[in-house]
Amino acid sequence: MKKIGLQTYEIEKNISVIATTSLVGNKEGQGPLADYFDFIEKDDKMGEKTFEKAERTMFLKALSDVIKKAGLKKEQVDLYVGGDLMNQLVSSNYVASELQIPFLGLYNACATMTESLIVGASMLEAGGAKNVMCATGSHFSTAERQYRYPLEFGNQRQSYAQWTVTGVGATMLSSTHSSNVKIKKVTIGKVTDFGITDIANMGAAMAPAAMETLSTFFEETKTNQKDYDLIATGDLGKLGSDIFKDLMKQKGYDIETNYIDCGHMIYTIDQDTLQGGSGAGCSASVFNSYIIKKLSSGEFKKVLLISTGALMSTTTNQQGDSIPGIAHLVMLEGK
Amino acid sequence: MKKIGLQTYEIEKNISVIATTSLVGNKEGQGPLADYFDFIEKDDKMGEKTFEKAERTMFLKALSDVIKKAGLKKEQVDLYVGGDLMNQLVSSNYVASELQIPFLGLYNACATMTESLIVGASMLEAGGAKNVMCATGSHFSTAERQYRYPLEFGNQRQSYAQWTVTGVGATMLSSTHSSNVKIKKVTIGKVTDFGITDIANMGAAMAPAAMETLSTFFEETKTNQKDYDLIATGDLGKLGSDIFKDLMKQKGYDIETNYIDCGHMIYTIDQDTLQGGSGAGCSASVFNSYIIKKLSSGEFKKVLLISTGALMSTTTNQQGDSIPGIAHLVMLEGK
Repeated sequence: MKKIGLQTYEIEKNISVIATTSLVGNKEGQGPLADYFDFIEKDDKMGEKTFEKAERTMFLKALSDVIKKAGLKKEQVDLYVGGDLMNQLVSSNYVASELQIPFLGLYNACATMTESLIVGASMLEAGGAKNVMCATGSHFSTAERQYRYPLEFGNQRQSYAQWTVTGVGATMLSSTHSSNVKIKKVTIGKVTDFGITDIANMGAAMAPAAMETLSTFFEETKTNQKDYDLIATGDLGKLGSDIFKDLMKQKGYDIETNYIDCGHMIYTIDQDTLQGGSGAGCSASVFNSYIIKKLSSGEFKKVLLISTGALMSTTTNQQGDSIPGIAHLVMLEGK
Repeated sequence: MKKIGLQTYEIEKNISVIATTSLVGNKEGQGPLADYFDFIEKDDKMGEKTFEKAERTMFLKALSDVIKKAGLKKEQVDLYVGGDLMNQLVSSNYVASELQIPFLGLYNACATMTESLIVGASMLEAGGAKNVMCATGSHFSTAERQYRYPLEFGNQRQSYAQWTVTGVGATMLSSTHSSNVKIKKVTIGKVTDFGITDIANMGAAMAPAAMETLSTFFEETKTNQKDYDLIATGDLGKLGSDIFKDLMKQKGYDIETNYIDCGHMIYTIDQDTLQGGSGAGCSASVFNSYIIKKLSSGEFKKVLLISTGALMSTTTNQQGDSIPGIAHLVMLEGK
């Protein structure tokens, strides 16, 4: 890799996205992106006794599928990198144990999808590894009870809240097999804290991190929004996206025309998700379906994916601390 | 990097450990390794109102010190990789926010020290980055209340329990600055689950993972215990170490003579820590003090460090699941 500026790296090897899998829950399957997902699960418990076990089952199904789609045997996958929103990354640990593929656990909250693509691409650049599997996901019901309230409590949701996506996205990167979608550049984010303390208002907590990462990428690569067909943030939601667009405008970039937020587009307004989707599974499922399919077909040539993470914790929140955010960027090119 | 076998990689660039810092609490400072630590904190709260805030303060002090010792400005540190035992890695997030260095959060429980050295070395091998800071740590009082019981509850500890080390270890790796301690090989572990369900019995949960990783390393490099001056596991404790030695013997390797466990050696038997130390700060503080100093002085020439992680979660434990383990290996050479 070649370093450009302080945070951006240019990938020098030919690193392709050779297979992707997206798996979502019933609600996501009723949204506008239904046609793009590989699997839509009608049962949010996937036949399991608990939501936590269901989340693992989702991971196992998606990861087994992406290995198969890539035409690889398990033993040919050198490395699995990724994580999830559960404390101690239990869903990822479980599937890593089942699959018996060497594993590096990552956690940057909902920014873990792009974090895993960055670590995966770096391992391929370093050499030795040829195929690296990158994955993350989330489940509405496990996240709600871990981060906020048990569902049975039936609390009223704030108008600025978001809805954790039930979904998993998996990407197989390869330096030996080739496809027409390549990872070309990455920007590693800094933790950014604008002092938001409300754990329901994640869009506001993450928007400054997205702004810092995207504007740094533009500065370091001497490009701007006009050089890309699509700029996609992970899960800022409607409110967070509006804040993000305003912050970018203050930096001198008007991203109105070719910008989407995965969280904003995964549900329709009548699905009652307030500001839209969030969660590690949000940018993971949208990137590994809608975005990849449009890159493969040639509809998009150059795409920036900026997954965004709110690094919130119930413990520190109860101690009055603010919620820091982080955003990592990956630039992809189609043929 | 060059891949040897399925899990082991040989580092091809000249990657040096150019600075290390170890910071521990009062209890660790009364143990047999006191002379090796850089900082011994008399106050486990470090002047803060909560243990969680104290843990962050520990991280900030250790990381600021390692940057200074390396003779670098903050802006010259390309990347910070690491994590901690707190849910959502809050201690690391906080210090990454304070330092404003690009950050990749990692979590493999107490195996995060070697995980961070592996990711750090890979980023340097990939090129672009020149200086990468790797760090992890833990705090007895934050870990006890998150994973087991609040201290005020005063529960009786099981005879096979361990004691979470209050400590932080930080390593600055560089591909441009040089020292006489180099990272030469790494083995990325698989998640291993032998079915232990008792969250106090972490040594037993981690020993199989350590055995899998070390025996894989021996097989893939065609070496054995006689080729190394020191083999150090992270935090198996006395009981876990005994199980590990037995498991290695079953694999045909008698590691009795040059083997230590960081958790076993950090406390004396009269310090009432039962099976000894554990926690991400255990191998982190012992590696970045005792082991590095003996590598630098030439007393050890070839060392294997195998940090060991019990990927336990209160949620999955309460749902009856077993505790998977993971172990990553780093081989270091002195002059």
